[in-house]
Amino acid sequence: MRRFLSLMGSKGLDGFLIAETKNMQYFTGFSGGSMLLVPRNGENILFVSGVNYEAAKVKTREASVDLVKPEEGLIKKIIKRMEDLKTRNVGFDSLKASTYLKLKEYSSEITFKDASDIIWTLRKVKDPSEISLIKKAAELTSRGMRKAAEIIEAGLSERDVAAEIEYEMRKAGSDGVAFDTIVSSGPNSAFPHGGCGDRIIRKGDLVVIDIGAKYRDYCSDLTRTFIIGKPSTKQRRIYETVREAQSLAVEKARAGAEAREVDRAARDHISKAGYGDYFVHSLGHGVGLDIHEPPTLSPKSKEILAEGNVVTIEPGIYIPEFGGVRIEDTVLILKGRAEKLTAAPTEMEF
Amino acid sequence: MRRFLSLMGSKGLDGFLIAETKNMQYFTGFSGGSMLLVPRNGENILFVSGVNYEAAKVKTREASVDLVKPEEGLIKKIIKRMEDLKTRNVGFDSLKASTYLKLKEYSSEITFKDASDIIWTLRKVKDPSEISLIKKAAELTSRGMRKAAEIIEAGLSERDVAAEIEYEMRKAGSDGVAFDTIVSSGPNSAFPHGGCGDRIIRKGDLVVIDIGAKYRDYCSDLTRTFIIGKPSTKQRRIYETVREAQSLAVEKARAGAEAREVDRAARDHISKAGYGDYFVHSLGHGVGLDIHEPPTLSPKSKEILAEGNVVTIEPGIYIPEFGGVRIEDTVLILKGRAEKLTAAPTEMEF
Repeated sequence: MRRFLSLMGSKGLDGFLIAETKNMQYFTGFSGGSMLLVPRNGENILFVSGVNYEAAKVKTREASVDLVKPEEGLIKKIIKRMEDLKTRNVGFDSLKASTYLKLKEYSSEITFKDASDIIWTLRKVKDPSEISLIKKAAELTSRGMRKAAEIIEAGLSERDVAAEIEYEMRKAGSDGVAFDTIVSSGPNSAFPHGGCGDRIIRKGDLVVIDIGAKYRDYCSDLTRTFIIGKPSTKQRRIYETVREAQSLAVEKARAGAEAREVDRAARDHISKAGYGDYFVHSLGHGVGLDIHEPPTLSPKSKEILAEGNVVTIEPGIYIPEFGGVRIEDTVLILKGRAEKLTAAPTEMEF
Repeated sequence: MRRFLSLMGSKGLDGFLIAETKNMQYFTGFSGGSMLLVPRNGENILFVSGVNYEAAKVKTREASVDLVKPEEGLIKKIIKRMEDLKTRNVGFDSLKASTYLKLKEYSSEITFKDASDIIWTLRKVKDPSEISLIKKAAELTSRGMRKAAEIIEAGLSERDVAAEIEYEMRKAGSDGVAFDTIVSSGPNSAFPHGGCGDRIIRKGDLVVIDIGAKYRDYCSDLTRTFIIGKPSTKQRRIYETVREAQSLAVEKARAGAEAREVDRAARDHISKAGYGDYFVHSLGHGVGLDIHEPPTLSPKSKEILAEGNVVTIEPGIYIPEFGGVRIEDTVLILKGRAEKLTAAPTEMEF
């Protein structure tokens, strides 16, 4: 919070209105508020409706809790508080346009501007307590993938496999899934977000399994691709290309590295193998309270990786109608290297 | 889509920019787009980035698919299309304020206004195919609750119970959970959104279980409260009050009823029993592609229920430190009555 106030100062902001649930949680430990007002001078106020008021009183830190009654109107109440506090230049994170327009309508004297970047400056660099929660989430996820490796075979549906993975993670302590579990088999695997449905897994399929447990609201992300039965020459070639690309990128990843250079390490390798047009997404993304957050590792990224970033490294090759391969780990950026937080074999015999 | 275009016309809009994933899905069957442009005259355009392009080509209906390359910039591309189409008055649904400001910056000739209400006018009334998907989701959810009733006992953790419920729903065909499963026991049950954690369920606990399966992207919502062991006089009194309140509200619910009158049927009953201050939320909400959507059933609601609405009816009483009771069903509004789509006993012996 002290660093946040100082960043606000450097941007000329004397207040910040936080609408994003995860940002509220980051600063107050409680995600059930309607909005959080952070004045540069004065006490933070978490505005809460009746349904979450009792929970807020018990769970919120670093802010007083202000009950918003149905007849009061959240926006009017916030503007009133801002006027009392004489805040004039207010940053916001991810307001809806309709809320922004209402705020402007109710106050002509306050300037509002998008300043979510300063929150991401903080959230991108995980502190030791956050890292330990992500590590725990990653361990649970690795456990789910081991389960997948044990059970996967021709004859099961994609959904059957998802059910077993999720159950394994839940029983081991997961607070739920960080995103909809992907078990995409055969032609479905050619879609990076191929979902998980009724399709029965068959001999000869590529099966992309992309899963994430949550632990105390922190996410993790792990993908492996299975080949059911003996791989064809083409499957083997694609698989090995992705596997090598991922290793090359993990080797590049470290504090001080340019994110786009890490992306390039994987992308060049895939291009040289002739599959450049089939690697249709960025190499990776940050992971924390959100499953997709800064920093992004892509050809256009301007990010420099820093110690404490937690990112995915996940190259893939997707051939329409044929199938796809993706291999992904969640890694912690350290001085001189990246530490894999997720763990699962990448050998094809897996 | 025809009705949407006609509603746009009645609002003086010659274009609509859809940013909300669920709205894209509603109109095109595909949720992986970046934005959907609906001109009053001309073909709809779904803007898609590379990662979802191949899937979009296969799955999108009612719109052409336009690949947005990283170097192009989504907003610039959209403005260019609007200029080609000569759209001047554009509605939007749930744009972020930052996107809204960028759109305004790139075009001084186009007016943008929040018009999500016209989409809700459509989405609130479910058609037969939507109703059959919600029914299926509700059946899966009821199955999860039967499982909960079978296994719940002192000694299990909240998370253990959640794991079994979710596994049961998944195996039976659920596409995942519509929201984070709530299993709140003992004092946790006093928080309406009490979550689900490590707490071990004990004799004498109230346990609120609030669950929802998803089926083909449609949600459902069901809550029952269990009493572990013999209920105390106070527990029994609170439980019966909530049970009666729910029945009274379900009886009131039908096409043509005012939503606030349905809320009042339950609220008055709870107030008369002396617990009015402890019913700290609205009676219910719409359910569809989103788990919380219009119409809202609350004391301030101006909605008139209509045939084809699907809503929850979920009164509750929450006594801090003592515990809470909530009983909820998802119901379909029909002429003259409401049909419960979820099914689970409400007798205390359950």
